[in-house]
Amino acid sequence: MKYVTAEDHHGEFVGIIGEETDSLLPLKRAEEAWKGESSLPETLQECIALEGFSVQAQDILQWSVSNAPNLFLNLNDVKLLAPIPRPAKNIFCVGKNYEEHAIEMGSKDDIPEHVMVFTKAPTTVIGPNETVLNHKNVTEQLDYEGELAVVIGKKGRGIKREEALDYIFGYTIVNDVTARDLQSRHKQFFIGKSLDASCPMGPWIVHSSVIENPNELNIETRINDEVRQSSNTKHFIFPIEEVISVLSAGMTLEPGDIIATGTPAGVGKGFKPPRFLKSGDKMEVFIEKIGKLVNDIEE
Amino acid sequence: MKYVTAEDHHGEFVGIIGEETDSLLPLKRAEEAWKGESSLPETLQECIALEGFSVQAQDILQWSVSNAPNLFLNLNDVKLLAPIPRPAKNIFCVGKNYEEHAIEMGSKDDIPEHVMVFTKAPTTVIGPNETVLNHKNVTEQLDYEGELAVVIGKKGRGIKREEALDYIFGYTIVNDVTARDLQSRHKQFFIGKSLDASCPMGPWIVHSSVIENPNELNIETRINDEVRQSSNTKHFIFPIEEVISVLSAGMTLEPGDIIATGTPAGVGKGFKPPRFLKSGDKMEVFIEKIGKLVNDIEE
Repeated sequence: MKYVTAEDHHGEFVGIIGEETDSLLPLKRAEEAWKGESSLPETLQECIALEGFSVQAQDILQWSVSNAPNLFLNLNDVKLLAPIPRPAKNIFCVGKNYEEHAIEMGSKDDIPEHVMVFTKAPTTVIGPNETVLNHKNVTEQLDYEGELAVVIGKKGRGIKREEALDYIFGYTIVNDVTARDLQSRHKQFFIGKSLDASCPMGPWIVHSSVIENPNELNIETRINDEVRQSSNTKHFIFPIEEVISVLSAGMTLEPGDIIATGTPAGVGKGFKPPRFLKSGDKMEVFIEKIGKLVNDIEE
Repeated sequence: MKYVTAEDHHGEFVGIIGEETDSLLPLKRAEEAWKGESSLPETLQECIALEGFSVQAQDILQWSVSNAPNLFLNLNDVKLLAPIPRPAKNIFCVGKNYEEHAIEMGSKDDIPEHVMVFTKAPTTVIGPNETVLNHKNVTEQLDYEGELAVVIGKKGRGIKREEALDYIFGYTIVNDVTARDLQSRHKQFFIGKSLDASCPMGPWIVHSSVIENPNELNIETRINDEVRQSSNTKHFIFPIEEVISVLSAGMTLEPGDIIATGTPAGVGKGFKPPRFLKSGDKMEVFIEKIGKLVNDIEE
């Protein structure tokens, strides 16, 4: 089950993609057709916060398949936005969560002993196929970072490792585009990580029920069709349960919170000489069981 | 002119404090009394985003002084909340922006050459006189940091130093409560800075027209009536104009964004031996032309 935020001539809406992967169902319109009215909120973030949302969504899907097949829209006829186009807080990002990436960023000394977290501002978020600004006046070292992202489904603090996966609504893909020169100049990562339009996200959220073990998914990033990053989330230094447990120890996680889980080796800065992004580059991030997130760099 | 978010038996509201500093006017109720209806939004964050809000607020204040003095509430009869109780993104925080504080945190090598920014999650925010959680199970090194905070009034990217002050709606006080052990264990500051209820804010936002030069204000923090931090914002390494210009170079600032500008020397960690916060401690942060923010630590 995949959840999307999309846009057509009626405006922005929350949709679900079922068995037929080339079409999607606008959930609120479908529930209105079914019941005469819909209690669903307008945004996917608010839907996620609703108790029992995914069951409700599946019921609507099932009813529509049998009773209102005309309500389904072809994926080509809508614009997919980031599943959560405007998060209610910064995106949490785990730094250096793959050993080989930590080493390529410096040396073995850079392998963290404890979970490292920085954030990206909500203003960084863009959708699939949208253009990442090149910020020519601000950076000369724009870099890609393909990452698995977790979307929290349930409020919690002090979440135990054993229960952490129950707090996940689903998974999506994030490209944590980074200005390496700003990242090192300003010490704390925030400034180099928060340029406008530097967080492509999507194309959808795959429900947690579909992915039994998020700590074992192939992940690959291609730049202009050349494979640059190719790994598997089983190489996480800190698996997702550990990240959620550490992050929530003293801080409440809330529905709709997004945690980018770190990037594998193969970023532009890791090459000798470095291979930073250029205007017009095409970036693709693939994650097993989720899909592909494609974005280009502003010409 | 001071703007508050407050609560009485009718609920949460936006208020203004005028010449009479012991009373406040609920703006929306007053406009309704004046015009039969009010176009003002419900939250101060949304009000700040309104073009011409402060002029509108002053008109309502002036009308009410003459025509509806009974609409004013005594400050003692309401509960002041944080002026922006739930920011729409993390709070931006400038790290090590006073030389002597940078030195007390390590050595002269810690004085930054470039603006350093980290963030605090929106879930950290609490109001004046509210209790900071002691998080006994998570930290043994809770510390205070009195800071001047800037509230952005106008959207902008690439803001020039000369124009930076025009983007400010007003000023408030923040106590950037920090878990020092977590801050150093997790390298990037975020985790140690984002414990629930670790960002007291308030008691109000003083409008920018009242403070001609925010880079010259006395600032003082007392713990249990003992002065610990005593400085002046003229000692900023990076004045506010510089911070806004660097932060907005590639990232859009938005109305309601909050920038905590850094803390002076005298934090608990700076003492030998360190003097971290204990359960029941009273913290007071004073800033010239703004006021006093008082909070205690959970028993």
